[in-house]
Amino acid sequence: MDRKRFEKQMAFILEADKEKNILRQTHLSGGGRQENDAEHAWHMAMMIYLLKEYANEPIDLARTMMMALIHDIVEIDAGDTYAYDETAMASQAERERLAADRIFGLLPDDQRDELRALFEEFEAGETAEAKFARTMDNLQPLMLNNSNNGGDWREHQVTKTQIMKRHGRNQIGSAFIGEYTRELIEENVRKGNIREE
Amino acid sequence: MDRKRFEKQMAFILEADKEKNILRQTHLSGGGRQENDAEHAWHMAMMIYLLKEYANEPIDLARTMMMALIHDIVEIDAGDTYAYDETAMASQAERERLAADRIFGLLPDDQRDELRALFEEFEAGETAEAKFARTMDNLQPLMLNNSNNGGDWREHQVTKTQIMKRHGRNQIGSAFIGEYTRELIEENVRKGNIREE
Repeated sequence: MDRKRFEKQMAFILEADKEKNILRQTHLSGGGRQENDAEHAWHMAMMIYLLKEYANEPIDLARTMMMALIHDIVEIDAGDTYAYDETAMASQAERERLAADRIFGLLPDDQRDELRALFEEFEAGETAEAKFARTMDNLQPLMLNNSNNGGDWREHQVTKTQIMKRHGRNQIGSAFIGEYTRELIEENVRKGNIREE
Repeated sequence: MDRKRFEKQMAFILEADKEKNILRQTHLSGGGRQENDAEHAWHMAMMIYLLKEYANEPIDLARTMMMALIHDIVEIDAGDTYAYDETAMASQAERERLAADRIFGLLPDDQRDELRALFEEFEAGETAEAKFARTMDNLQPLMLNNSNNGGDWREHQVTKTQIMKRHGRNQIGSAFIGEYTRELIEENVRKGNIREE
């Protein structure tokens, strides 16, 4: 065993701690405080394990869970970009690339390459694992927001068109969950939580 | 696909959100606020993936990660029990059993049984997966506390005997990490962060 290698691994793991301070726009159920990236990723990984039967294609469970656990880690440097903020979305890719260089660079070379590839696989959304993880990435805040009677949507005056641009892709990872989320969004439009236009 | 089954799964997943409000004694790196159970479990699951090469025996990665993700879920009802609070430790088992009945009972029967077994496997600490997960459960707060110059140990005036009672078992999951944590604890005793007696 190689102590230098272990220390690089621990440096990355300690750096990841900062994700607990990156706040998202979503609030916890019960109308609580804003959720952070670590909590969101924990929830997603659990969902991947429990909901895997709904994936359109078979997935490698451990890889998909790890993909979820680290998919937002670049936000330590690049910050959270709200899905419905189009200005911030434009510069997001370059900010996240630089962050990935630095943060994954803390790891030993083999794990740096492995995690960077896993991160980029999620971003590209082309494998069975990435497709399902991305559906979970959408379902998790939808669940919380629905439990809070759409508080975050109302605050940001989000429209059905904006929401469906994102959630319309849920069926790519899971036809069943795509249909479930479509119905849940319609229900929130009817309740006035999401703007109709 | 069965909508009733999916709704049970989602009820459990939403209930799990409450773990984000269960505070631990450990503080985030950089002398931050107290960590919560969801953040701790997220960190542990990532560590299991990245540090699996140090496990004494081969482990099933997805099962070990899921074990970590849910190992504290009973604290939603039973509260966090500080490892060095002996009074609270005494009533912990019964409080956690009742909580496990209620919380895992939200799931469909097959997943209720699967997760309950995974939870109990962690508690028993006898399988390769449970042994390694338990070592990660100890290493994660040790890492944070060490990064904060032992703030939590100093606050609770924890002694080396108390710490070693817990961390002396780290070698059961990983001989390498057992040795690493033993050295780190000795270093913190020398620095005066952990009481010698």
